[in-house]
Amino acid sequence: MTPHADRFLADLHTLRAFGGDDAPGSKGVRRRAFTEADLAARDWLAEQFRDAGLTPHMDPAGNLFGLAPGDRSLLMGSHSDTQPEGGWLDGAYGVIAALEIARAAQEAGGPPVSVVSFQDEEGRFGALTGSSLWSGKLSEADADKLVATDGTTWPEARARISDRAGDWLDPARFTGFLEAHIEQGPVLDAAGEAVGVVTGIVGLRQIQVEVHGQQNHAGTTPMAMRRDAFTVAARITTALPDRFANIVTPQSVWTIGHIRLHPGAQSVVPGRAEFSLQWRDIDADRLDRMEGAIAQLLRDMGDETGCEITWGKLRHDLAPMPMDAGMQAALSAAADEVAPGRWRAMPSGALHDASNLAGLMPVGMLFVPSINGVSHTFEEDTGEDDLVTGVEVLARAVERLG
Amino acid sequence: MTPHADRFLADLHTLRAFGGDDAPGSKGVRRRAFTEADLAARDWLAEQFRDAGLTPHMDPAGNLFGLAPGDRSLLMGSHSDTQPEGGWLDGAYGVIAALEIARAAQEAGGPPVSVVSFQDEEGRFGALTGSSLWSGKLSEADADKLVATDGTTWPEARARISDRAGDWLDPARFTGFLEAHIEQGPVLDAAGEAVGVVTGIVGLRQIQVEVHGQQNHAGTTPMAMRRDAFTVAARITTALPDRFANIVTPQSVWTIGHIRLHPGAQSVVPGRAEFSLQWRDIDADRLDRMEGAIAQLLRDMGDETGCEITWGKLRHDLAPMPMDAGMQAALSAAADEVAPGRWRAMPSGALHDASNLAGLMPVGMLFVPSINGVSHTFEEDTGEDDLVTGVEVLARAVERLG
Repeated sequence: MTPHADRFLADLHTLRAFGGDDAPGSKGVRRRAFTEADLAARDWLAEQFRDAGLTPHMDPAGNLFGLAPGDRSLLMGSHSDTQPEGGWLDGAYGVIAALEIARAAQEAGGPPVSVVSFQDEEGRFGALTGSSLWSGKLSEADADKLVATDGTTWPEARARISDRAGDWLDPARFTGFLEAHIEQGPVLDAAGEAVGVVTGIVGLRQIQVEVHGQQNHAGTTPMAMRRDAFTVAARITTALPDRFANIVTPQSVWTIGHIRLHPGAQSVVPGRAEFSLQWRDIDADRLDRMEGAIAQLLRDMGDETGCEITWGKLRHDLAPMPMDAGMQAALSAAADEVAPGRWRAMPSGALHDASNLAGLMPVGMLFVPSINGVSHTFEEDTGEDDLVTGVEVLARAVERLG
Repeated sequence: MTPHADRFLADLHTLRAFGGDDAPGSKGVRRRAFTEADLAARDWLAEQFRDAGLTPHMDPAGNLFGLAPGDRSLLMGSHSDTQPEGGWLDGAYGVIAALEIARAAQEAGGPPVSVVSFQDEEGRFGALTGSSLWSGKLSEADADKLVATDGTTWPEARARISDRAGDWLDPARFTGFLEAHIEQGPVLDAAGEAVGVVTGIVGLRQIQVEVHGQQNHAGTTPMAMRRDAFTVAARITTALPDRFANIVTPQSVWTIGHIRLHPGAQSVVPGRAEFSLQWRDIDADRLDRMEGAIAQLLRDMGDETGCEITWGKLRHDLAPMPMDAGMQAALSAAADEVAPGRWRAMPSGALHDASNLAGLMPVGMLFVPSINGVSHTFEEDTGEDDLVTGVEVLARAVERLG
């Protein structure tokens, strides 16, 4: 199987033109799900599928498949919608890489490879909306209640594709799902490596913490008589690394991304602090142990400071999603052939459509580097040599999977 | 000199009725500067002045004086405007206590005591607006640019008193200024003490700090590669007490009352944190040393974390304002007579009209307890026995001052 680098890169640049930012030198893209640019890109993709001998099929969620001949095939792909101001590779790389592999596989006489571009991975309406619907994790009734921030409803969005859409596909027709994606993190780029074989998609837990102190005058209240909610929040933040010390690995992460003080005035000792605390890890036991350490810290800090500290889950826990062992083995062997010493096994810290499919079929993922680790911005980019290396690893892996 | 507790308390309750909250049991008051309630209260006060043999005089800022006969007198008073939802004693106590002392002094044949209720101490337009104008710290031209949050301009406000207002009074006619006020802090109440003799009004400095880190994805960025602006802000907060350890006294205070993270999203490592840091102390050298320790901490933390940390003054420094030694001595001797073992010398952590007058004449201040230390709320209160004790201390001090 011989993927063609020039053909692959040319298609990738053509896809970028749909919603591509006009500014000189910009690689940015505006291709929000169900916008003109998104639907035009899907129409163009359907043509490429036809030219490659794949049968285009759009399902009721707007997921666009290019189906290989025959009853069974390996599914490859990602998504072609973007953030409001997104990069040119986030999703697009996995879709065009899949197209190139499907073509190369057909030219080589097999194995059969189908392609998919999922709809609304970037969450104009929810998050991973298209693959959530297809996998049954989101019901059509619940989807119909989704509303974008601009007021567009999901029923309005799917009305835009009513002339194109057919029925749902049976996932059982696919032997597995293989997704290539940019890393969206700094690990490969910082290490000078070309490829990451994803071991799993990390689980995520998130709580909202409220510290109830005592609102006071910032001039008349002696330090010893204060119950300053922000000071307590700061102590919790700085104590976390110690509390986690015997639990976490270098791949565990935790983040306080939002905090609000009440009343939030410069001359008032904050009476209340509310903040989010999110943690992610590839191992469910470790997520449990981190949760236990957090709860213990919050209890200890409440006892120590006399503040009431309450917390609750802000969203459903997301369980870690391990990648299929056979997929990992094929990708690792291929990476070792194509980029010896320049790849690693690593978790995905970000969610991907692959998470939704892991219960339905064997799933694998491959990462290529993100320059400076940035994504969801016009500045997102990856060296073209790395993009091509990724396609070659995919080709070798698909050969191994047969 | 014999102040009458009943007459004093009756007047205090009558003043409360102007703008008093109607809810059963509420002691709260809404008497914002220049509102109907405020002007009606000033008209009532002018009558009480007249009845007490004092000549009412309103100046162009709306400050209402009750002038004792003769060329020279001691000025006593505070303010009778309130916060939008204020307490019944904040300001009012000092005005009615001064009225009672002026009456008692007249009944005793001297010394001559004049009374004042300053206008807009609570800062509908600025802060301490009336006493700032009278003392020359705020020019009439600058005052005319002031606008309340409801859109009312200062010229509109002073137009409401044009029929009542006369000219500015020469501060030189007063031998000194003595202000009684609720503490607005927890110190006296917690100690079970009745009276505080104010040593000075603390100075205040305030900076705005910006921590510039690196905004990143909260899932894909390993902890070791983060420059999390909030974590750095939290470390600064928790490091302050150690850095201050050899500098501060139990009367020094510092506060981070406001913080904002960018972008402030639960799944994004904060790239920027902006927060206010305010500190107050009675000693200017100590304010300097605290400022030095803060600057050193911010520099150290920048070096340690690789974040750029910038800061600047948010407002003019307010210098500490010591109270007059003779006034303090008279108040202390009086407190020792009236409430032996139940008073203390203490700084004022809050600003007062007395701050503005300290450059013009000898100034003294007396505190009575605030129950639970609260003020600027309907719940503000002080035991009536403590209110009366304060008036008795004032009477004895005025006798000593002659």
